[in-house]
Amino acid sequence: MLSNNVFPHQAAGILRSPRSITVMGSTGSVGKSTVDLLKRSPELFIVEALTANRNVELLAKQAVELNAKLAVVADSNKYNELKLALSGTGIEVGAGPEAILEAAIRPSDMVMAAIVGFAGLAPTLTAIRRGATILLANKEALVCAGDLMVHEVEKHGAKLLPVDSEHNAIFQVFDCENRAAIEHITLTASGGPFRLYSASQMANVTPEQALAHPNWDMGSKISIDSASMVNKGLELIEAAYLFDLPENKIKVLVHPQSIIHSMVSYVDGSVLAQLGDPDMRTPIACALAWPERIHTPVKQLDLAEVATLTFENPDCERFPALNLARRALKEEKTVIFNAANEVAVDNFLKKNISFSAISVMVEKAITDFVTPSHDTLEKIIELDKEVRIWSADIIKRKMI
Amino acid sequence: MLSNNVFPHQAAGILRSPRSITVMGSTGSVGKSTVDLLKRSPELFIVEALTANRNVELLAKQAVELNAKLAVVADSNKYNELKLALSGTGIEVGAGPEAILEAAIRPSDMVMAAIVGFAGLAPTLTAIRRGATILLANKEALVCAGDLMVHEVEKHGAKLLPVDSEHNAIFQVFDCENRAAIEHITLTASGGPFRLYSASQMANVTPEQALAHPNWDMGSKISIDSASMVNKGLELIEAAYLFDLPENKIKVLVHPQSIIHSMVSYVDGSVLAQLGDPDMRTPIACALAWPERIHTPVKQLDLAEVATLTFENPDCERFPALNLARRALKEEKTVIFNAANEVAVDNFLKKNISFSAISVMVEKAITDFVTPSHDTLEKIIELDKEVRIWSADIIKRKMI
Repeated sequence: MLSNNVFPHQAAGILRSPRSITVMGSTGSVGKSTVDLLKRSPELFIVEALTANRNVELLAKQAVELNAKLAVVADSNKYNELKLALSGTGIEVGAGPEAILEAAIRPSDMVMAAIVGFAGLAPTLTAIRRGATILLANKEALVCAGDLMVHEVEKHGAKLLPVDSEHNAIFQVFDCENRAAIEHITLTASGGPFRLYSASQMANVTPEQALAHPNWDMGSKISIDSASMVNKGLELIEAAYLFDLPENKIKVLVHPQSIIHSMVSYVDGSVLAQLGDPDMRTPIACALAWPERIHTPVKQLDLAEVATLTFENPDCERFPALNLARRALKEEKTVIFNAANEVAVDNFLKKNISFSAISVMVEKAITDFVTPSHDTLEKIIELDKEVRIWSADIIKRKMI
Repeated sequence: MLSNNVFPHQAAGILRSPRSITVMGSTGSVGKSTVDLLKRSPELFIVEALTANRNVELLAKQAVELNAKLAVVADSNKYNELKLALSGTGIEVGAGPEAILEAAIRPSDMVMAAIVGFAGLAPTLTAIRRGATILLANKEALVCAGDLMVHEVEKHGAKLLPVDSEHNAIFQVFDCENRAAIEHITLTASGGPFRLYSASQMANVTPEQALAHPNWDMGSKISIDSASMVNKGLELIEAAYLFDLPENKIKVLVHPQSIIHSMVSYVDGSVLAQLGDPDMRTPIACALAWPERIHTPVKQLDLAEVATLTFENPDCERFPALNLARRALKEEKTVIFNAANEVAVDNFLKKNISFSAISVMVEKAITDFVTPSHDTLEKIIELDKEVRIWSADIIKRKMI
C-alpha cells in the first residue's frame, strides 16, 4: 500500500515551521511575486532582509509590510531617500554593492536570488558560501559561473532550488535518486510573441512588440530574451549545470499555451511533467516550502477550460539563439553568450540595433572573442566586462 | 544542489538485481504485455508461475519461453491438454481454481494480478496474505473488496503497485509523504468510441462498434466498460481505495488522445502528471522495476508529432456510469455496481440488451438490491453471486 496510513493526513505536507528569508531583488517581477506570498503567510516567513536596485519607494513599502529587519538599495545615491522612507520604523537601511553583499551574508535559512542579470552573481555566490538554501531565479549565476557555483554549493553544503518555471517543473519530477533512469529532459518554450513571424518580419520588430509576452508577466530584459529565445538558451545552459546533463540530453519544445512547464522522460517511456496556470507564484511557493508545500492564491488548473494544448519543434533558423547556447555550452563560452546578449538587448531597447541583430551580435562574440581561462569569480567578472566593452564597440562601429 | 554527485550516475536507477514473479492471467491483454517485457530481460526476472483462464496453447508457449517453473490453467477440463503441451519441458502443470490459488501462494517477490473480472479477487488476496508485492491490474479486487484488501495489505506487509495506466500515472507523481499538500487527483479518460455520439445514437450501437477503442489495445470486457465509461467509474472506486481519497477529491477529465495518463494537483497550484505513448508496457515496466526503472521498447513520446492535446469535461448525462460509481462508493455498493455491470456487459456482447441498458441495469441494481453486510471474502463472493443471479433474472424477464 502507498503508505496511506503511515503519515498523518492532517499535518504532513503543509509547511508549518517558520523559516527566515532574505529576498534579493524584491522589487523585480519575481521579487514582487515572492513578497506577495510572504505577505500572505506572516506566521511562516521571517524576513531578514530585502534588497532592490533603485525602486526605493516600493522597497520601503515592502520592508514595512513584511516587517523586514534590513532594507538595502544597490544604488548608493538612493541611501538618503531610503533612510527617510524608513525613518521611525526601526528597519535598518543600507546602500551600495557592498551593502547588498552584507545582506547576502546575514544569517537566514533561505535566500531568494532574484536580482536580474550579471549583477546577481556575486550576492548569490556570497549566500552560497554561508551554506544557505538558494531559491535561484537569477539565471546568470549558473550561466556565467556554473562550474564555480556547483563547486561552491557542494563545498559549503548549500542547496539550490530552481525558481524559473521550467527548472522548477523539472525539479519537481526529476528523480535524483534514479538519475540513470532519466532518458532526457524537455524545456517547454512559449515561442514568444514572434513565433509565427517570418524571418523578414522579425528583422523589423520594435521593442514595444517584443515586450508583449503572450503568457507571462515579466521584466523587460527577460521579455526580449523570451522573444529572441535567448531566454530558452540561457535556461538550457542553466539546466545543464543544475541537473548535471550534457546539452544533447536537454530538448526544447515550443508549447504556446505555457501550461506544461517542462518534463522529464524516463527509460521506460514514462514522461513526468509539471503543469499549471502560468503564474510565477507556483514555482516560487514550491521553492519557499520545499520539501513541503504551501497554499497559494494561484487558480487551480482547469484543463477542460484550457481545452487545447499544442506543441511544435522550435525553428532554429528563425531563432538561432538555441543552437548558439548549445555551442556556448560545449565551447565553455557561456559568459560571452550572456554578456554579448545583455549588451545587444540593451541596444535593441534603445533602438540602436534591430531585433535580429541580437543573435548576430551573440554569434559574433562567441566566434570572434578570444576566451581566457575564467575559473574564479574575479576572472569571470573581468571576462564579462571585457566582452561588454568589446560588444558595445562592435555595435557602436556598426560592425553587425 | 540536487544531489547530482551523491549518486553514481552509471548505476542508480536501472534495475539490476533479479526478482522472481508470478503472472496471474498471462494470456490476457496485460498478461501478454507483461510476458513481452519479461522475455526481454531474462537476466532480471525469474518466472515462478504463469496462470491463464483457458488459452492453453499460448500459456504453454509463454511458460517455455520464460522458463517458468509452473503453469496453471483455470479450466479443469484443460489439464490434459496443458500436460501434453508441456511434456518433457520439466515445467510443473496444474488446473482448476485451487491450483490457481496454489500458484498465488508459491513464494515470489512479485505477483502480477492480471486476471480479468471478479475471478481475480481470491488469488490476489491470497498473494497479499503471503506479503507479496502485488502489481495490480485487476480492478475488481479493490472495487469489490477495497476495505478488506487495504486491511490485509497492511496486516501482512504486502505492497500494491497499480498497473492501470491511470493509477500508475498517479502513483508516479503522488507524494505519499506529503499527502496534506494534495488538492485532488484527476483521472483522464479517452471518452471511448462514443464520445461524440448523441444519446439516441448510443442506444443502438453494436458490440462491434463498442469494441473498437480508439487508443488502447484491450480485452473485450474492458473495451465495453471503456465505451460506457463504467471503466472510469471502476477506476474512480479503485483510486479511492488505493490513494485513500474521498470521491469528491477524484476528478475525471476527458482527454481523447490518451497521452496524459492522469494527474495530481497540489495546493500551491502545481499539477504533476505522467504522460506517454498509450502502451501498457510503460506502466507495467514501472511496476516491475519500482522503485527503479527498466528500459522498454515503448516509443519515446514526441509531443511535437502528437501536436495537439484536447480536454473536456465528461458528459454525465450520456455517460451515467461515472455518477453511479460515485454513488456506489458513497453507499458502499461497489460490489453491486461491479456485478450488475459484468452481467449487463455479457448480455450486451450476446446482443440480449442494448448498450444504453448497461447503465440502466447498474442503476437499477444499486437502487433496488438490498445490500447485506459483506466484510469477509466469503460474504463478498456470496453477495456478488446473488447480484449476478438477480441481474440476469431482471434481464431475462426484460425488466430493463
